[in-house]
Amino acid sequence: MSLITLERKILEKNDEIADENRKLFSEMGILALNLVSSPGSGKTSVIEETIKMLKQKIKIAVIEGDCQTNLDAERIDALGIPVVQIVTNGSCHLDAMLVRDAFEKMDIDNSTLLFIENVGNLVCPAAYDLGEAMKVVIISTTEGDDKPLKYPAMFRNSEVLIINKIDLLPYIKSNVKEIIKNSHLINPNLKVFTTSCTSLEGLNEWCDYLLDKLKI
Amino acid sequence: MSLITLERKILEKNDEIADENRKLFSEMGILALNLVSSPGSGKTSVIEETIKMLKQKIKIAVIEGDCQTNLDAERIDALGIPVVQIVTNGSCHLDAMLVRDAFEKMDIDNSTLLFIENVGNLVCPAAYDLGEAMKVVIISTTEGDDKPLKYPAMFRNSEVLIINKIDLLPYIKSNVKEIIKNSHLINPNLKVFTTSCTSLEGLNEWCDYLLDKLKI
Repeated sequence: MSLITLERKILEKNDEIADENRKLFSEMGILALNLVSSPGSGKTSVIEETIKMLKQKIKIAVIEGDCQTNLDAERIDALGIPVVQIVTNGSCHLDAMLVRDAFEKMDIDNSTLLFIENVGNLVCPAAYDLGEAMKVVIISTTEGDDKPLKYPAMFRNSEVLIINKIDLLPYIKSNVKEIIKNSHLINPNLKVFTTSCTSLEGLNEWCDYLLDKLKI
Repeated sequence: MSLITLERKILEKNDEIADENRKLFSEMGILALNLVSSPGSGKTSVIEETIKMLKQKIKIAVIEGDCQTNLDAERIDALGIPVVQIVTNGSCHLDAMLVRDAFEKMDIDNSTLLFIENVGNLVCPAAYDLGEAMKVVIISTTEGDDKPLKYPAMFRNSEVLIINKIDLLPYIKSNVKEIIKNSHLINPNLKVFTTSCTSLEGLNEWCDYLLDKLKI
């Protein structure tokens, strides 16, 4: 019983801070996206390719979350984009306070696209609002068709689904139609993009969508 | 402060039950393996192919863990192997009590190989002892070389690493040597197998290892 109470308190406190983050982001015209996925589905690669395509047009910043290492922040830093790495030291998700702390360390202008790359975990980050405008769930084609059914909370709580690594489709059993069908069974409103960070297929449509969301 | 205390109590209680499970498995000559990985790395496929290779030689049973669905249990059931599905209803890991409950539902003989397939999550299951003889961490080549560094607890707490989907290596940037190097930086004692459930490469070595562990 006490666990439930305590978890509820933690989530309530998290939601309060998330609401404050959201208000701040909104006032500054910042579009904050919470990128969630399994480890290795290509979150950082999608961010890298989006940066390459859009950095001449818009301001972009990144908050990186990982259990350990600053490897992802180094990849973003190499592109000349403001980035703060949060190392959770084993914790399985980012929370709103960690994002606020990271944001305060950054010198971010108004009207910026802010990627928040969560810890690779298709379960726990679904429960934690960071103050984002929306969650973007990424799934790699190699993970199989059944993941939306097995991990429904993440797909239910996201607005966008990116199906990544479509260049590998000729070599695997997965089927994009089946992934989309299963995703829409869980959340019929999911907006879907299919991408490859190797062939760059589908990334133009994703970038156009972001520019539209930023009203540029 | 109270969260830490409570988590410790939960983990202590879990460890007590895990020790009881381990004692029972040991008395019955059951080799219990806790299979852990990201979603979609191929845990169920590795179990399926192992069953096909070994079911004429040894007794095998499976406990399946998932946030939702009994899809994996259906795949094992189709092979004529005793299986119990644990649906965690969103929880991010199995615990020792869930495994005990599942085990009590099964009619398992002595001297059985028991696969416990955990929820697909490279973070949280690392902290929960189920009473297994060992954790086997599976990583798919498509997840990238850096995962052992980013999710070290899981690699530290495992005895065996299976690098799966090696048939996809010609089409991706990942490098098996680099995955092994990074894994051994975290845990120099990890025993490594490289496998493909498509080409079946490497599965014989894995099965020979299991027979040796079962002293058959």
